[in-house]
Amino acid sequence: MPADLHLFAVPGIPEVTQGADIAQLIVDALTRAGVAIETGDVFVVAQKIVSKAEGAVVQLRDISPSALAMEWAAAWRRDAAVVEVVLSESRRIVRMDRGIIISETRHGFICANAGVDASNVPKGFVTVLPRDPDASALQLQTGLVGRLNRRVATIVSDTFGRPWREGVVNVALGVGGLAPLLDCRGMTDRFGRTLETTIINVADELASAAELVMGKRAETPVAIVRGAAEWLGSGRGSDLLRSPAMDMFR
Amino acid sequence: MPADLHLFAVPGIPEVTQGADIAQLIVDALTRAGVAIETGDVFVVAQKIVSKAEGAVVQLRDISPSALAMEWAAAWRRDAAVVEVVLSESRRIVRMDRGIIISETRHGFICANAGVDASNVPKGFVTVLPRDPDASALQLQTGLVGRLNRRVATIVSDTFGRPWREGVVNVALGVGGLAPLLDCRGMTDRFGRTLETTIINVADELASAAELVMGKRAETPVAIVRGAAEWLGSGRGSDLLRSPAMDMFR
Repeated sequence: MPADLHLFAVPGIPEVTQGADIAQLIVDALTRAGVAIETGDVFVVAQKIVSKAEGAVVQLRDISPSALAMEWAAAWRRDAAVVEVVLSESRRIVRMDRGIIISETRHGFICANAGVDASNVPKGFVTVLPRDPDASALQLQTGLVGRLNRRVATIVSDTFGRPWREGVVNVALGVGGLAPLLDCRGMTDRFGRTLETTIINVADELASAAELVMGKRAETPVAIVRGAAEWLGSGRGSDLLRSPAMDMFR
Repeated sequence: MPADLHLFAVPGIPEVTQGADIAQLIVDALTRAGVAIETGDVFVVAQKIVSKAEGAVVQLRDISPSALAMEWAAAWRRDAAVVEVVLSESRRIVRMDRGIIISETRHGFICANAGVDASNVPKGFVTVLPRDPDASALQLQTGLVGRLNRRVATIVSDTFGRPWREGVVNVALGVGGLAPLLDCRGMTDRFGRTLETTIINVADELASAAELVMGKRAETPVAIVRGAAEWLGSGRGSDLLRSPAMDMFR
C-alpha cells in the first residue's frame, strides 16, 4: 500500500466537443495551472467528456420511440425518446419498475438507464457510454504518456448506483496502464493466517476517491490521484465485470 | 467539492484487544508519529479493530452448529461453527449457493458471511460486526474531538463485495460527525439543467479512498482523509441502507 495519496482536480478543462483531443486538453490545462506531473499519477476522467469527444451523443429528435418506450414514458412521465435510447443501449433489462430501468449495457455494465444521461449536455441531447471504455482509457493514457513523458495511468469513470445502498459512487468503466484488481490471496495476516478470498477492486476505489474532488456540475471532469505508482500495470476495466457464471445476482 | 484531499494511514496502531480505547490508541500513535491533526480530518477505522475493542469476537469452540450449518459446512468444506455464527448474525438469507452465503445482518447490511471474518484474529476465533456501528463511530469521534480539540469525523468501515462487479471495496458501516450523503438534486449543470437524481454517497467514497492506504493485513487499520471539512455534519451510516420499500434487489 502507498504511504500516502494526494487527490486534486485538474482546473480549467474547457467544454469538450466532438473530436476533441482530451489528452491535449488535459496537458494544456496542467500547463496553465503550473501543475507538474509525476510518475504514478492516475488520471480519473469522467465518462461524460469521453463520450462527448467520441461523439457518443444522441440527438433526441432523431429517435423514433418504440411502443414500449412510449408506453413507459407515458406511465412514468419520462421522455419517450430518452427511454428509447436507454432500451437501445441495453442488451438485457435487469429491472424495470416504478419508472426506473436497470439494464445491462452492450459492454456488460449493469446500471441505471444503461448509462444514458442528460446532464451537462445541451437540451435535446443525451450522452451514451463510450463504445469501448478500455480503448478510450488506453488511448488517453498513451496520449498522456507521450506528451508528459511520465508513467501515468487512466481511468474512465462513471457514477453508478448499487443494490441495497443509497447514493451513487464512482466506478471504473475502463482503465489504461493500471492493474485494476489487487489480489491479496496467499498473503498472510499478523497471525500467520492466509487471507483466502480478498481481491480488492483498486480501480473502483481510485475512481471513488477521485470523485470526491470532481464536481457533479462538470466544472472539473478530470482528477488526479497522486502516489499510485504501485498499481501501474496492465489490465482492463472489463476485468471488473463479474462473469455471468459466477454472478449470484443476475 | 474540496480543492484537494490527502490520504495517509496512521502508523503504529498496536494490536487491539477487548476494552481498548481506540481514540486513545490513535492519539498516542499520532503523537509518536508527530502527526498534527487538522479540522476536517476524517478518520476511517477498519471494523475489525472496533469489533475487537468491543468484544464482538466469538470463540468457535463455544458454538454448537445447527443441522443446517453442519450440512452446509460438509457440502462446501467450511467450518460448521463459522457457518453457525454467520447464520446467527443474519436476519435474512439473500443468497446461499456454491458455498457462499450473502445475508442481511441484524443492522440491515447485505454482505457476504454477515460480516463474520476470521482474518487478523487468533486461530479459533472470528469477529462479527460491531453491534451498532453508528454508536461506535460516534463514540470514537467524541473521543477524538475531546482529545485533539479539532472538529474531525469518523467512519467505521468494512470491505464488501457487490453484485455484478469483481473485487471488494471499502464502505461505511457507521459514521460520526459526518454528513454521509451529498444531495445534488436542485443544483444546475453548466447548461442550466437541473440535476434530478444525483445523491452521492460521500461516506462510501471516503471509505474507499482511505482503503487505498490501509493494509489488508491489518498493519494499518486507521487512515485519515485530510481536507474533508465540507462534509462534516451529522448523519448516520444507517442512512446509507436503502429502505426495503425502495429497493429493487431484495
